[in-house]
Amino acid sequence: MSMASDSILRHLKERRQKHRAVLAMRWRCARGGIEFEELDTFYRALRPYLHLAQFFGIMPLANIRSRDPQDVKFKVKSISTFFTGIFLLLGGIKTLIICNIVLNSGLNAKNMICIVFLFVGITNWLNITGFARSWPQIMMPWSSLDILMLFSPYKPCKRSLRFQINGIVIFVGSLAVVDHVLYYASGYCSYRWHIWNCHSNETRLAFGYYLEKEFSDIFVLMPYNLFSLCYGFWLNGAFTFIWNFIDIFIVLVSIGLAQRFQQLAKRVLALKGRLVPDALWYEIRRDHIRLCELTALVDASISNIVFVSCANNVYVICNQALAIFTKLRHPVNYVYFWYSLLFLITRTSLVFLTGSRIHDASMLPLKSLYLVPTGYWTQEVQRFANQLTSEFVGLSGYRLFYLTRRSLFGASTKEYFFIIV
Amino acid sequence: MSMASDSILRHLKERRQKHRAVLAMRWRCARGGIEFEELDTFYRALRPYLHLAQFFGIMPLANIRSRDPQDVKFKVKSISTFFTGIFLLLGGIKTLIICNIVLNSGLNAKNMICIVFLFVGITNWLNITGFARSWPQIMMPWSSLDILMLFSPYKPCKRSLRFQINGIVIFVGSLAVVDHVLYYASGYCSYRWHIWNCHSNETRLAFGYYLEKEFSDIFVLMPYNLFSLCYGFWLNGAFTFIWNFIDIFIVLVSIGLAQRFQQLAKRVLALKGRLVPDALWYEIRRDHIRLCELTALVDASISNIVFVSCANNVYVICNQALAIFTKLRHPVNYVYFWYSLLFLITRTSLVFLTGSRIHDASMLPLKSLYLVPTGYWTQEVQRFANQLTSEFVGLSGYRLFYLTRRSLFGASTKEYFFIIV
Amino acid sequence: MSMASDSILRHLKERRQKHRAVLAMRWRCARGGIEFEELDTFYRALRPYLHLAQFFGIMPLANIRSRDPQDVKFKVKSISTFFTGIFLLLGGIKTLIICNIVLNSGLNAKNMICIVFLFVGITNWLNITGFARSWPQIMMPWSSLDILMLFSPYKPCKRSLRFQINGIVIFVGSLAVVDHVLYYASGYCSYRWHIWNCHSNETRLAFGYYLEKEFSDIFVLMPYNLFSLCYGFWLNGAFTFIWNFIDIFIVLVSIGLAQRFQQLAKRVLALKGRLVPDALWYEIRRDHIRLCELTALVDASISNIVFVSCANNVYVICNQALAIFTKLRHPVNYVYFWYSLLFLITRTSLVFLTGSRIHDASMLPLKSLYLVPTGYWTQEVQRFANQLTSEFVGLSGYRLFYLTRRSLFGASTKEYFFIIV
Amino acid sequence: MSMASDSILRHLKERRQKHRAVLAMRWRCARGGIEFEELDTFYRALRPYLHLAQFFGIMPLANIRSRDPQDVKFKVKSISTFFTGIFLLLGGIKTLIICNIVLNSGLNAKNMICIVFLFVGITNWLNITGFARSWPQIMMPWSSLDILMLFSPYKPCKRSLRFQINGIVIFVGSLAVVDHVLYYASGYCSYRWHIWNCHSNETRLAFGYYLEKEFSDIFVLMPYNLFSLCYGFWLNGAFTFIWNFIDIFIVLVSIGLAQRFQQLAKRVLALKGRLVPDALWYEIRRDHIRLCELTALVDASISNIVFVSCANNVYVICNQALAIFTKLRHPVNYVYFWYSLLFLITRTSLVFLTGSRIHDASMLPLKSLYLVPTGYWTQEVQRFANQLTSEFVGLSGYRLFYLTRRSLFGASTKEYFFIIV
Repeated sequence: MSMASDSILRHLKERRQKHRAVLAMRWRCARGGIEFEELDTFYRALRPYLHLAQFFGIMPLANIRSRDPQDVKFKVKSISTFFTGIFLLLGGIKTLIICNIVLNSGLNAKNMICIVFLFVGITNWLNITGFARSWPQIMMPWSSLDILMLFSPYKPCKRSLRFQINGIVIFVGSLAVVDHVLYYASGYCSYRWHIWNCHSNETRLAFGYYLEKEFSDIFVLMPYNLFSLCYGFWLNGAFTFIWNFIDIFIVLVSIGLAQRFQQLAKRVLALKGRLVPDALWYEIRRDHIRLCELTALVDASISNIVFVSCANNVYVICNQALAIFTKLRHPVNYVYFWYSLLFLITRTSLVFLTGSRIHDASMLPLKSLYLVPTGYWTQEVQRFANQLTSEFVGLSGYRLFYLTRRSLFGASTKEYFFIIV
Repeated sequence: MSMASDSILRHLKERRQKHRAVLAMRWRCARGGIEFEELDTFYRALRPYLHLAQFFGIMPLANIRSRDPQDVKFKVKSISTFFTGIFLLLGGIKTLIICNIVLNSGLNAKNMICIVFLFVGITNWLNITGFARSWPQIMMPWSSLDILMLFSPYKPCKRSLRFQINGIVIFVGSLAVVDHVLYYASGYCSYRWHIWNCHSNETRLAFGYYLEKEFSDIFVLMPYNLFSLCYGFWLNGAFTFIWNFIDIFIVLVSIGLAQRFQQLAKRVLALKGRLVPDALWYEIRRDHIRLCELTALVDASISNIVFVSCANNVYVICNQALAIFTKLRHPVNYVYFWYSLLFLITRTSLVFLTGSRIHDASMLPLKSLYLVPTGYWTQEVQRFANQLTSEFVGLSGYRLFYLTRRSLFGASTKEYFFIIV
Repeated sequence: MSMASDSILRHLKERRQKHRAVLAMRWRCARGGIEFEELDTFYRALRPYLHLAQFFGIMPLANIRSRDPQDVKFKVKSISTFFTGIFLLLGGIKTLIICNIVLNSGLNAKNMICIVFLFVGITNWLNITGFARSWPQIMMPWSSLDILMLFSPYKPCKRSLRFQINGIVIFVGSLAVVDHVLYYASGYCSYRWHIWNCHSNETRLAFGYYLEKEFSDIFVLMPYNLFSLCYGFWLNGAFTFIWNFIDIFIVLVSIGLAQRFQQLAKRVLALKGRLVPDALWYEIRRDHIRLCELTALVDASISNIVFVSCANNVYVICNQALAIFTKLRHPVNYVYFWYSLLFLITRTSLVFLTGSRIHDASMLPLKSLYLVPTGYWTQEVQRFANQLTSEFVGLSGYRLFYLTRRSLFGASTKEYFFIIV
Repeated sequence: MSMASDSILRHLKERRQKHRAVLAMRWRCARGGIEFEELDTFYRALRPYLHLAQFFGIMPLANIRSRDPQDVKFKVKSISTFFTGIFLLLGGIKTLIICNIVLNSGLNAKNMICIVFLFVGITNWLNITGFARSWPQIMMPWSSLDILMLFSPYKPCKRSLRFQINGIVIFVGSLAVVDHVLYYASGYCSYRWHIWNCHSNETRLAFGYYLEKEFSDIFVLMPYNLFSLCYGFWLNGAFTFIWNFIDIFIVLVSIGLAQRFQQLAKRVLALKGRLVPDALWYEIRRDHIRLCELTALVDASISNIVFVSCANNVYVICNQALAIFTKLRHPVNYVYFWYSLLFLITRTSLVFLTGSRIHDASMLPLKSLYLVPTGYWTQEVQRFANQLTSEFVGLSGYRLFYLTRRSLFGASTKEYFFIIV
């Protein structure tokens, strides 16, 4: 046997062994082996934040620590569902009391925002519980796609999913904490100013008295003591937490999906200039269809969350923008007003911009397809190109609007004209 | 002869017999046989509500009980046309009297809604009579398509058309009845409050005196007695009935068309992975074209109804929304205000969402076409795919706008910004 | 020779003779023979109205009575150009005087409409003179296309161009005359009411005194006598005439182009089910391209007219709509207000709807192409189908907006929300 | 050897020599030879204005006089970067002082425009410095494309790039100078009127006193003398300069890109009716892709500039438009108000219209492709046609909006309705 054919045989053997190793690894991963834990899957990157969310009764999933995504399910009889129930009950009571207070004093544009905030919070809890119920139907195909795309021939992205997700959560999370602290600081300053100017009773300037007013809905039912104050802080915090959590959650889901589309685009790019058999194009196209189907599946479950989140954000931004020329009393009020407005705009833009990354990433292979040379252009390539241009891939709010830059622009121009009027 | 070829021959014979039976059945159905009555056709599902509508002079068709859709026609000399004439006359008189009252007291945004309501009612009666005139031109091809698609190779949908239509009508109908009752209750409460506070004459608190004011346009021409009261209720009810009927009618038509597109998509889905001859693709594509042509035909006849309905609904919602911060006197007023606003938004959304189902259903086969394997992809499949992506299929208001989620979103964002201003 | 081949030969001979006759006829027409006069060309249908327009200095073309479209040109030294100059001079003087009056009394939304009306009139005169300069460049290819499409294999439309154009002009023209008469009637009623209530000097109630006020800008320069009154009527009339003429002109051009696209669609429809050689498809496609090029050429020349017309109409409608709840003094004022508003809406809608007919007609062949059977579907047909779906054909305002139903809807919803606010 | 073959050989030899000469010339140009200086490249046309801009600290590039585009780079340690630093420092101080003044007197819609103007100026300086940093990455491929397309087989455009760019700069530049002069004239007139009517102290009517008020922010830090006056003029001028420079810069970039697309379209047009081998189509298509990639590269670097520019222009136009019915005191105020409004609208429209030329020019080859005869239509041509229709090519503001006629129309209708309200 000649040297050349010998080296070829050795090469083929190595390749076969490698392929078999990848298949074996995939198989072990799919059955929830230890190796699965070490993969850069979306589920693993998301898990720490799901743990945190459960302290606020959000996303009630049982067995969240389990290594096997098949075990993570919504169960009616579990601690996390119990937590959710508690929150819905206490949140519901708070909402009813404040509704009663507001309706008695007359509904207007200013106090309506407060009711909307509470109702949206309750709706979000319900929506996310609904999402938790469809969790296994979404995560099973997602994890299997993750397993598929974390091995050769797909290459990992520069920045791991875990890194990106942690970055976003820490960034938005810390902004949100500052916003929440400023809320109390600004409220207390206003309260002090009000007492100073309207009442001579300066003994009531302490922070405690301010909280008495702030949590007046709680002291309807409870005496004033440290426990009820903590309860007030905690419940307020929970509503703020879910408001931020919803937006961050949409962003994380978008990043998770966009990453996979980018990997697919990378794979197509790597084929540039090569003679690609139709069978390979068909395989790539099928992976693309699987990704699109996953996106459609996620979209169907998340669209109510997206809809409520975006509608509420736009509503709050407009309401804030109306007060842009109001003269405020204290620098802290100014700081809080502008900080919270800019934070909200940033968060909403982030939702739309990361959402639009899914579609942008899904279109990336097109550029590579344009460069396929004349001879290598087959019907399969054409079908792939047609498929890429004719479909819209991405998250939406009940398909009434899609998370795209265009939608963001449409909403923001309307707000822009709204503000400058 | 061998056993195998024997069994093949038997199989082919059975198939031929089955095919012949289907053809014979279709033939009998097309001639209006008893079997036709038992099919889940759109006409059969709609008929009970057409009966009901005729009591209010809507959709004047003769021979509506006939089994044969060919007999159901608009006839100038028939009882139902006579009924329509009566309604147009009495409604016209009411409209003129109220116009006169309003114009004398000065037109403003508040009383304009009342005139618009009456004018739209009259316009709806005329439009629906126009639709009745083109009834046979629409129902003949529709019924023949129904006959075609209710037999093999098409499979029935999970829920029968009859079931879906009855569900929608009962749901919206009962909401509408509650709305109408609340209207009188709210009006009476306002009246009582008004009398109590402005006049000391407490003898006028009875319900009868309220009606005297409510139906003041009728007592211009008639004495106050039980008959004229009933007449007042009946005429008011008729205007409310047609307002609701129009929206429900658009919804039913949308459901009827969407169902057929879904069946077509199901048939395409069933071919997944099989080698399909071009002749079969051509047949399916021709059925698709027939469905599109039916939709275009229906759209041409119904677009004036869609236009008036949507324009009016948006107008009324905006008008109501303007009053969102008005302080009302009585809990019943609040209940009626929010109930009627939400009912109207629900009904309008329903019109757009079911309307958009036609287009969504017409696009469904595309997903299956993407999965056609490389070897089976012929020019016929490509033409089918091109056809699906290049056409818009659905109902419209004079093609100025289409009943899609996008239009609903466009209208609702405008209203949304309108409300929060 | 057999009987059959004899009959075939005779048939072929007849066909050849017919073809030769058509060619000869086309040739004679193209050279401006008498036969050309009898064709249903756009130029012939438009000519009577160009004669009329020249009395108001609009569209200054020399040799307008000539049978040969090549002779009809813009000439600087001609009677019609002289007329245009006179109108521009007198209209300019009127505009300057009224500007001076308005600016002295302070600009506001109410008197701004008056200045805008005059400026738009002057701009229209200039624009239409610009159009007249490019007249031969447009009419030569249009007439040659007309000659091409008025003979076999193209079939004439049901209603001749002349009939359609006369219908539109008479319809809109008579509405415009009524509008103009109502303008004076309403003005006179307001004037009477004003005199009656504010001054006791009842001797000034005569119509003459009203005109003195109406034409106050003229009596700055001229004494009050019959001639100056006629001059006032005439100049006012000219501004009103050009305002209506512009809209009607756009409508007529749209009808002329749409008609030709309809004929093309008819020809494609006639090929339904037949085996069509590629050469014939190429010929049809080339005719389609020629029609598209003609439309692009016309669009380039008319887009400034379209832009000014639409912008002005939208502006006037919005301004009128703002006054919808103003209490007017006299029934005649009401009649004039609603009549002119509805007339304007009708006219604007007509511009957009007939404009959209061009694109609708250009898309008609698509339906026929979908039905081309499997075997007859060649690359030429596919190219034709692609071409139809990828291009937009129609008139536009500087391509900022196109005359489509969608644009009309966009404009009208904005106005609609504008009115109900 | 026969005569014919001799002439053919000579012809082929000439052609080979010509081709070799073009290649040699390109090579010399690419290495920055003297010949490169004489080419009509974008860089050469832009250079004089970059010189000018550096006097205002804009676009800090080192070695700007170098013939070789490779030498022109952003360097931290260079005179131009030092200039930019000075401007940012002085502009920042001015901004802070005026912010302080405004916030003390209370923020409102009127003085907000002043703060926005300064902030936008600072942002523009930073953005353009960012653009300068990516200068070599953009200019290297651009220059190489310029070299490619300034030789055969590409033909030069009628008007050289230099001519077009000079025309635009002189046109907009002179309008801007007039606008700036009118600003001071109008300000002085208002000041005079104010002194005349409110104070009897007529000694303060001199221009110097007006400047003392106009540059009040400078006299906080400096004494009143000729130097500080000049400094005031100079800093004000710099802010105005960058505001105009940004818009003009976008326009110039658009012209530079559109020119190249036009040349490509011309080349395709020249192939009309010829039998073009697939290799040539592939070459043209590759050039098209290179142009699209260049546009995408430029877009990525310029989109922040485009975004800020358009958002600011729309904001200023709306703010001005709000004051359209304000009564002004002096004719000069009127002249300045209308001049600056129309100038701004013109400039903004110019940005959008020249921006839209890129996309329009990139679509031009489509018309030629439609006319490719049946036999010459290959897969490469079809791919080219598909590519042209499926991509959007042009500049954008973060891809939130594109510089197209449609965007301009969208923005302008909103402003239009805004104004007439």
